[in-house]
Amino acid sequence: MIKAFSRMPGIGEKTASRLTYHLLKSPAEQAFALAEAIRQLKENVFFCTVCHNITEQDTCEICQDPQRDRKVICVVEEPSDIRAIEQSSSFRGLYHVLGGHLSPLDGIGPEKLSFDLLVERIQKSNPPVSEVIVATNPSVEGDVTALYLQRLLAEKNIQISRIACGLPAGGHLEYADSFTISQALQGRHKIES
Amino acid sequence: MIKAFSRMPGIGEKTASRLTYHLLKSPAEQAFALAEAIRQLKENVFFCTVCHNITEQDTCEICQDPQRDRKVICVVEEPSDIRAIEQSSSFRGLYHVLGGHLSPLDGIGPEKLSFDLLVERIQKSNPPVSEVIVATNPSVEGDVTALYLQRLLAEKNIQISRIACGLPAGGHLEYADSFTISQALQGRHKIES
Repeated sequence: MIKAFSRMPGIGEKTASRLTYHLLKSPAEQAFALAEAIRQLKENVFFCTVCHNITEQDTCEICQDPQRDRKVICVVEEPSDIRAIEQSSSFRGLYHVLGGHLSPLDGIGPEKLSFDLLVERIQKSNPPVSEVIVATNPSVEGDVTALYLQRLLAEKNIQISRIACGLPAGGHLEYADSFTISQALQGRHKIES
Repeated sequence: MIKAFSRMPGIGEKTASRLTYHLLKSPAEQAFALAEAIRQLKENVFFCTVCHNITEQDTCEICQDPQRDRKVICVVEEPSDIRAIEQSSSFRGLYHVLGGHLSPLDGIGPEKLSFDLLVERIQKSNPPVSEVIVATNPSVEGDVTALYLQRLLAEKNIQISRIACGLPAGGHLEYADSFTISQALQGRHKIES
């Protein structure tokens, strides 16, 4: 049990044994409930066949929602990113989960991510997709992935945009790192009155 | 002594007494050096008459530098912001220090900040100023200050721009707050190939 726990991210052997002893002491129903939840997770949760988000059906809730704008696709690395964007309530289009970012050093090339599915999806889409927003993380790998996507979709008549990199809301110039400041200056925009 | 120390930001009574006891124990020259440094700071450091940056001369080094682009002015809240931007080596124009941000609730109106000096400076500038970059912090007050500046300079033929707000470099969507995500999406830009 300790070994099984310590395989999980952020859990070392000490925490694993603490969790195990907690389960030993707690009532049987609680332990069974956790076991059942884990079993159901693996049996009932799949990847959405359209966007690779996690879902309990064949197609995820967002892809099924008729209220969403089907002309805009926001490309993210992981399903957890969709959750973060949904919580901000600032996007009403559809998503596409790549399953990571390009990272040649770790052996992650385009074939390991869901680019093919995205291209196919764009080709088939009705209404046609007008914009793809690349919301991969603002890291070197995330930027490379964004550039790859831009080239992949260059010949289609679609605007490819990238989320802004700059100072976080409520941040201070004084405490920001140099690279973020330089990106915030580069990415400046005209103030609309 | 403890009272004098504890008036400084980030120093409470405990830290103040620790510092005081440290001075008591340390050699006299060290203590005198600190006293002298404080005296010189108040006697020799002034605000630049052009941009309100701190300087030991009448005009600061940046305003004097013939290599800097005199057509672009970056407006910041405090001299410490200039230091942060200079460390990023991403800006080659001039600066203007407002001395804070607009904050009606705290009684800080436009008359308390150096807007007049900025307007006068822009009118007199040769070569004429083509762009003002508002680099006040991305807080509500910083944004209001930016908007005020935009209106103040609206009739002059100058582009007023604002630094980008979004995810910091190396950041993760998953850990970003909702408002930052919403700003990053709003501020998205076309990817150039």
